Amino acid sequence: MSGITRFSISMDSKLLKRFDYLIVKHGYSNRSEAFRDLVRERLVKEEWEEAGTETVGTITIVYDHHKHDLTENLIEHQHQHHKSIISTMHIHLDDHNCLEVMAVKGMAKEIRKIADELISTKGVKHGKLVMTSTGRNL
Amino acid sequence: MSGITRFSISMDSKLLKRFDYLIVKHGYSNRSEAFRDLVRERLVKEEWEEAGTETVGTITIVYDHHKHDLTENLIEHQHQHHKSIISTMHIHLDDHNCLEVMAVKGMAKEIRKIADELISTKGVKHGKLVMTSTGRNL
Amino acid sequence: MSGITRFSISMDSKLLKRFDYLIVKHGYSNRSEAFRDLVRERLVKEEWEEAGTETVGTITIVYDHHKHDLTENLIEHQHQHHKSIISTMHIHLDDHNCLEVMAVKGMAKEIRKIADELISTKGVKHGKLVMTSTGRNL
Amino acid sequence: MSGITRFSISMDSKLLKRFDYLIVKHGYSNRSEAFRDLVRERLVKEEWEEAGTETVGTITIVYDHHKHDLTENLIEHQHQHHKSIISTMHIHLDDHNCLEVMAVKGMAKEIRKIADELISTKGVKHGKLVMTSTGRNL
Repeated sequence: MSGITRFSISMDSKLLKRFDYLIVKHGYSNRSEAFRDLVRERLVKEEWEEAGTETVGTITIVYDHHKHDLTENLIEHQHQHHKSIISTMHIHLDDHNCLEVMAVKGMAKEIRKIADELISTKGVKHGKLVMTSTGRNL
Repeated sequence: MSGITRFSISMDSKLLKRFDYLIVKHGYSNRSEAFRDLVRERLVKEEWEEAGTETVGTITIVYDHHKHDLTENLIEHQHQHHKSIISTMHIHLDDHNCLEVMAVKGMAKEIRKIADELISTKGVKHGKLVMTSTGRNL
Repeated sequence: MSGITRFSISMDSKLLKRFDYLIVKHGYSNRSEAFRDLVRERLVKEEWEEAGTETVGTITIVYDHHKHDLTENLIEHQHQHHKSIISTMHIHLDDHNCLEVMAVKGMAKEIRKIADELISTKGVKHGKLVMTSTGRNL
Repeated sequence: MSGITRFSISMDSKLLKRFDYLIVKHGYSNRSEAFRDLVRERLVKEEWEEAGTETVGTITIVYDHHKHDLTENLIEHQHQHHKSIISTMHIHLDDHNCLEVMAVKGMAKEIRKIADELISTKGVKHGKLVMTSTGRNL
């Protein structure tokens, strides 16, 4: 579909050396891959600031399933958004605590709203939205 | 196991009014729940800055499964850390792009290392680590 | 101008204990003050996501003043925005490196634009925008 | 002192095109400068995670100078750290609100501590630490 472009950039040698050290430390196989990651990270950030593009996120929540009505409430919330929530993974962390991760697809605004709803549900101890991407433009 | 403490705090009325407006906007059912969320969020942040406590994270990656060797590499990485990676959810976003979310349990440092390895793998387009919690202390 | 409201919130005792430990660690004089800080932090975050309110930011840049034309470029940029940039503090870090902090007042969008311009100027090594507030609503 | 290295990296053409669009939008004069900024940003982030290197930060606070004892408290705090606080800029935002920015040099841990102390002082409405750099390694 789209080719590979090879282009050169110039950088202060000392700066490049420090970056090379960092990419080894974080396990990158080569410099180009590390640069591509910096670029993609920046693009995903931008994608979420723009309106009108479909994007992908994951919502992570931790909660105590013994809390009255909580499981029912969460399931109801998720069903209201069944068109956006692709799948849910559930982990029993211990007798009380559950970890639940939902994969969500939709407009940035809509995904934020679903995350807000789930994270603010009484009994949910902690929640986070990961803003990632459909991968199509990366 | 542990009881509920009721205590009072004092706040500038104007400030409280603005916060009340915000918690309605974000769908909280009551003020206490919103305050508990602020507190938990702060504690989780702290938990990840300290060493020596077991914690929980989720690692989200987006990649093109057509990339040569990528799927094999990712599976190998995951197997090396099979004691820490509790479960993996895989979503086929389109013909090319996959979304994968892993639930990981372990020391903060170890989880960061696994996330680094997976996110820096050649062909992974985007990746993010969510630092959450076992829920035990929240 | 506006009074103080005293209200009570309920919280899991264990959770509160952990928060109390944290506020001592970070040097808060009392619990109310720590809660007010969490609330204000949240409100400032919201303020910057909304359009149409005047707000305040500081822009920090580090650069080498020996770089050709850089000082002139930065001064020119700043003059173009003289209505928004209230004041600039300049520190000579060493023979080469300067730290400059600008206090900026205006619409969130406008402040972001000024920060973008200054940080992206060739020769500026590092830059950051702090989104704070006029303080009027906090 | 140190030369310039010119090296080439390979990138998916579509990805590069999107990045080129973004760097125009944010006012970069050329691609190399944008890449250098991504690299420096990453290095500063790393610098603050490591211990034992001297670094630079700015602390921004907003407060009401009419609050009893606040100005005295802040000045006392600052004097206790006079070796680390290089300079302070003070802006009168309105009748009540002040913006104060301090330039601080020292170990990451020490700068964080000073920021904690100032931001947690009763009466300080909002505060933020910018983690930047001495510029020497960038």
